[in-house]
Amino acid sequence: MSLLRETIKKIEQIDNTLAAETQERLDFLTKPQGSLGRLEELAKQVVEITRIKNPQLKHKVVFVMAADHGVTEEAVSAYPKEVTPQMVYNFLAGGAGINVLARHAGARVNISDLGVAVDLNPHVELHIHKVNYGTKNMAQEAAMTKQEAIQAIENGILTFEEEFKKGIDILATGDMGIGNTTASAAIIAVITGRQVEEITGRGTGIDDASWRKKVEIIQKAIQVNKPDPKDGIDILLKVGGFEIGGLAGLILAAAAKRLPVVIDGFISSAAALIAYRIEPKVKDYLIASHLSQEKGHRIALDYLGLKPILDLHLRLGEGTGAALAFSIVEAGVKVLNEMATFKSAGVSEKS
Amino acid sequence: MSLLRETIKKIEQIDNTLAAETQERLDFLTKPQGSLGRLEELAKQVVEITRIKNPQLKHKVVFVMAADHGVTEEAVSAYPKEVTPQMVYNFLAGGAGINVLARHAGARVNISDLGVAVDLNPHVELHIHKVNYGTKNMAQEAAMTKQEAIQAIENGILTFEEEFKKGIDILATGDMGIGNTTASAAIIAVITGRQVEEITGRGTGIDDASWRKKVEIIQKAIQVNKPDPKDGIDILLKVGGFEIGGLAGLILAAAAKRLPVVIDGFISSAAALIAYRIEPKVKDYLIASHLSQEKGHRIALDYLGLKPILDLHLRLGEGTGAALAFSIVEAGVKVLNEMATFKSAGVSEKS
Repeated sequence: MSLLRETIKKIEQIDNTLAAETQERLDFLTKPQGSLGRLEELAKQVVEITRIKNPQLKHKVVFVMAADHGVTEEAVSAYPKEVTPQMVYNFLAGGAGINVLARHAGARVNISDLGVAVDLNPHVELHIHKVNYGTKNMAQEAAMTKQEAIQAIENGILTFEEEFKKGIDILATGDMGIGNTTASAAIIAVITGRQVEEITGRGTGIDDASWRKKVEIIQKAIQVNKPDPKDGIDILLKVGGFEIGGLAGLILAAAAKRLPVVIDGFISSAAALIAYRIEPKVKDYLIASHLSQEKGHRIALDYLGLKPILDLHLRLGEGTGAALAFSIVEAGVKVLNEMATFKSAGVSEKS
Repeated sequence: MSLLRETIKKIEQIDNTLAAETQERLDFLTKPQGSLGRLEELAKQVVEITRIKNPQLKHKVVFVMAADHGVTEEAVSAYPKEVTPQMVYNFLAGGAGINVLARHAGARVNISDLGVAVDLNPHVELHIHKVNYGTKNMAQEAAMTKQEAIQAIENGILTFEEEFKKGIDILATGDMGIGNTTASAAIIAVITGRQVEEITGRGTGIDDASWRKKVEIIQKAIQVNKPDPKDGIDILLKVGGFEIGGLAGLILAAAAKRLPVVIDGFISSAAALIAYRIEPKVKDYLIASHLSQEKGHRIALDYLGLKPILDLHLRLGEGTGAALAFSIVEAGVKVLNEMATFKSAGVSEKS
């Protein structure tokens, strides 16, 4: 618990006083004021977060955290749970969606096992921070113990700290875990207070009957466990997952280091809600990369007050949407750093 | 006219038969089917356009065409027309928004003068294809002669062909011309048949009274000139601009070479509508980069049946939205080219 406590203690309010000053600098650049829309907003947010006037986003990292979910016993997913370790090997081999999109963005990928149900073969790029061999079936009992929930968050912090030694200017959250849209829907329903039907989507692609079943399982999990909507750790332990806890820890650790965190889709937003419940100040460190096709994602983002940058009908997870959004955030920062001013370029101003 | 005729003759229907085959290949990749949404659609479109199974988008070019507009006499813009040449020099010095965003996308910038009102200082990277020293005031008379309209389109084709020698895999359209949202609004209103009020926006940032004036000027220009809504060249010559004609030529030339054209915002969409009126087959070669803040842009895109990739509240022009979208289109193509299949990665398929 001490690592978590120390991390939380380091999280400060972002410096809102820098927004006006940065906007003024943006307004001197050779373009009509405000004409670069969200790029300007993103540049301002990165300055507020980092407190650096001309931030460089050279070191970009996507963290992909993997774990299994006991609730897959209830047949809530279209894919067998063996896919979790298989996909981890795919990440390590560089063949998954996130590998392609991270390479495209010039980002590193950090792959960690927070709780895959089997022992994974060692690999130099695989970070083992396993809390346990998958969660318990939340439809029957709590997904994990309180100690495990704290361990998951702290292992997320440790994963961050290891990678931070290599340099990080901006990071993204990514996930892998068959069954994790089920856990995420439960978390989002509990925290936002919305109906499970509104939040629950089709995950990797289930049919109507399976969707109905999934809704019932989530309702049952909430009923059996009665998570406290105000207590992030209580929600995590009762209806969460190890990778979700790890991502929450990652978000807290990044905020403590004044780094912008680009969150991916549905699962990442559930993790962001957990982190927000633990320490509300993290909210301003978050950049929502995209609006997922997963039903209920918008509800989670609205609750956090975040506007997604992209809407590309993605529903893959792994951090893929976040990797795509890196390019847009970086573009905003480059506008601030590299564009000429009206004066330096000898361009007449608005009459 | 012969260059235009020859170019049109070379434009073929894109090969729709490649869509199903490409989707099948996408469905073998290690992700739930369709889970990369628009990235998959973009990959398919690029294959259909290029007829290359694994297209490489290495050579990316943003064409920025500049020209002046006689209608600025009517005080329709927030900026003086001197800004057109000043911004061309800014492009050449590398300090404008498009320079920053093209560098970020790994794209070249081709800068051409289609009709700036002054003689520009020579520069090795400035391509002079001037049709005339700005258009006439369309509120009083036709913006240009028929011969000039054809010349503008053909100069756009020539601009493309010069740059094509250096290699182009994908291109973007960009514009610079004080007053060109006025001409573009007129074109879009004529072609779509919608009211001028619905189409006319604030351009670089005018107030309510100036907006009302701008609407009246556009209505007057249409009334005075009576462009034929079915005749792209007639519309261009009566209420268009030299850079808009040049961009229409660029689009036709690219389609003739089976290249995907990423169109920027409001002005580029007006040019795309002109090209579409000249040869409807070009439509399938177009990729809409973003939804501009300029009112009426959505109407133009809907008319062309195009869905914008981004919605970042941009209204700068220059090709900035298109340069940002390059990254997304390229991501789609890389997914197709680089992701592992379920079989090659040893990942179990959907049960």
